[in-house]
Amino acid sequence: MPISVPAKALVFDVFGTVVDWRGSLIRELRALSRARRIKLDCDAFADAWRAGYRPAMARVRSGELPWMNIDQLHRLILDELLRRFDIDWLTEPEIDHLNRAWHRLEGWPDARPGLAKLKRKFVIATLSNGNVSLLVNMAKHAKLPWDTVISAELFHHYKPDPEAYLGAASLLGLEPGEVMLVAAHKDDLRAAAACGLQTGFVARPREKGPKQKLDLKPEREFTHNAKSFLDLARKLGA
Amino acid sequence: MPISVPAKALVFDVFGTVVDWRGSLIRELRALSRARRIKLDCDAFADAWRAGYRPAMARVRSGELPWMNIDQLHRLILDELLRRFDIDWLTEPEIDHLNRAWHRLEGWPDARPGLAKLKRKFVIATLSNGNVSLLVNMAKHAKLPWDTVISAELFHHYKPDPEAYLGAASLLGLEPGEVMLVAAHKDDLRAAAACGLQTGFVARPREKGPKQKLDLKPEREFTHNAKSFLDLARKLGA
Repeated sequence: MPISVPAKALVFDVFGTVVDWRGSLIRELRALSRARRIKLDCDAFADAWRAGYRPAMARVRSGELPWMNIDQLHRLILDELLRRFDIDWLTEPEIDHLNRAWHRLEGWPDARPGLAKLKRKFVIATLSNGNVSLLVNMAKHAKLPWDTVISAELFHHYKPDPEAYLGAASLLGLEPGEVMLVAAHKDDLRAAAACGLQTGFVARPREKGPKQKLDLKPEREFTHNAKSFLDLARKLGA
Repeated sequence: MPISVPAKALVFDVFGTVVDWRGSLIRELRALSRARRIKLDCDAFADAWRAGYRPAMARVRSGELPWMNIDQLHRLILDELLRRFDIDWLTEPEIDHLNRAWHRLEGWPDARPGLAKLKRKFVIATLSNGNVSLLVNMAKHAKLPWDTVISAELFHHYKPDPEAYLGAASLLGLEPGEVMLVAAHKDDLRAAAACGLQTGFVARPREKGPKQKLDLKPEREFTHNAKSFLDLARKLGA
């Protein structure tokens, strides 16, 4: 894609792109089941939790559900999973704590150093469907040096609704073409490009674990294709 | 005021509390008038610009003006001041650059080290009437280490409307009583207290220059009274 102006701000998809949701959730679930001496298929539980996310969001996007933030959607899915996996040994505060495992996700190894480099040259912000408090708590936990946190929650529109991409550019006081979405997911990047944003694809081969069939191929349609945030920083001269 | 729970997040008024708007504006105006070899009463210009801010916001709060962000309100006031001070030697891009002097304000000397200390123990965020892009650019310029930027712009309600204080707590996923507003202005703190927030008063004796008659007295009604952000950090055990 031709670049008309240099980007001034980079906004980042977070789950999968910046943080390893699957590895982090599995570690929390394993620690929990070990502490309680209960057998639990932690990989399946983590995958099922994430698999519930898109359908739940689609129900909000279509108007079937009223606006609910991701903490609330994660809890909706979790309550159903606890039934499905026969887990009846958690108290309400423990369930709430488990639901906030999403606030404690760990960054990919290149995330923090890559963001630190990119921050010297660009405004860097989240553009995630995760709610503000989730993203703020995660940034403190994983030491992600955002200039600010931007969330779909601010617009009451989840990605890939155009309101999310255009809303982020507007809050940053920039034209859509001055903003680059960085993401590991091609559908997210394509929706951003349709709104006029630049696009940075970063392949995350381990997002969905060993058996994944993710599409990791670079695409000429994206402004940049990179192997990591450090690679992206190099390509952007940061 | 009795403290029921420890604060988890501190949200900061910005103009006057974190940054020295008056000193910063005067420096920019002096540099500009020197470069053009034009006589300009820079102190009076800066004070008039700031004096226009409350009446302009009041017109938005009352509904007389539609929602406009602070960049737009600053520009409205600036255009009138350029006429009043007979300044006809600035091009449109130069006027726009001058309007963004508010994006380039400098922190009080204790702001950056104080915030760095407070950030170790608390979530720290702005809660300013300044728009998001102004606050993000200012944070980069003055190296203010916010966890995130929260602005009245997100709620389309300027402080002291309750929506701004309650909206900030809600975005942070906290009860109002778990959030402390830190400000140099007693009216701002009183409006926050009326919404259930904790309050931290930080006296800024130089905010309005040498001739000011600011009320700097500590008050028992506030949760804490401090002489600087470093003093506040000490008082909060950060």
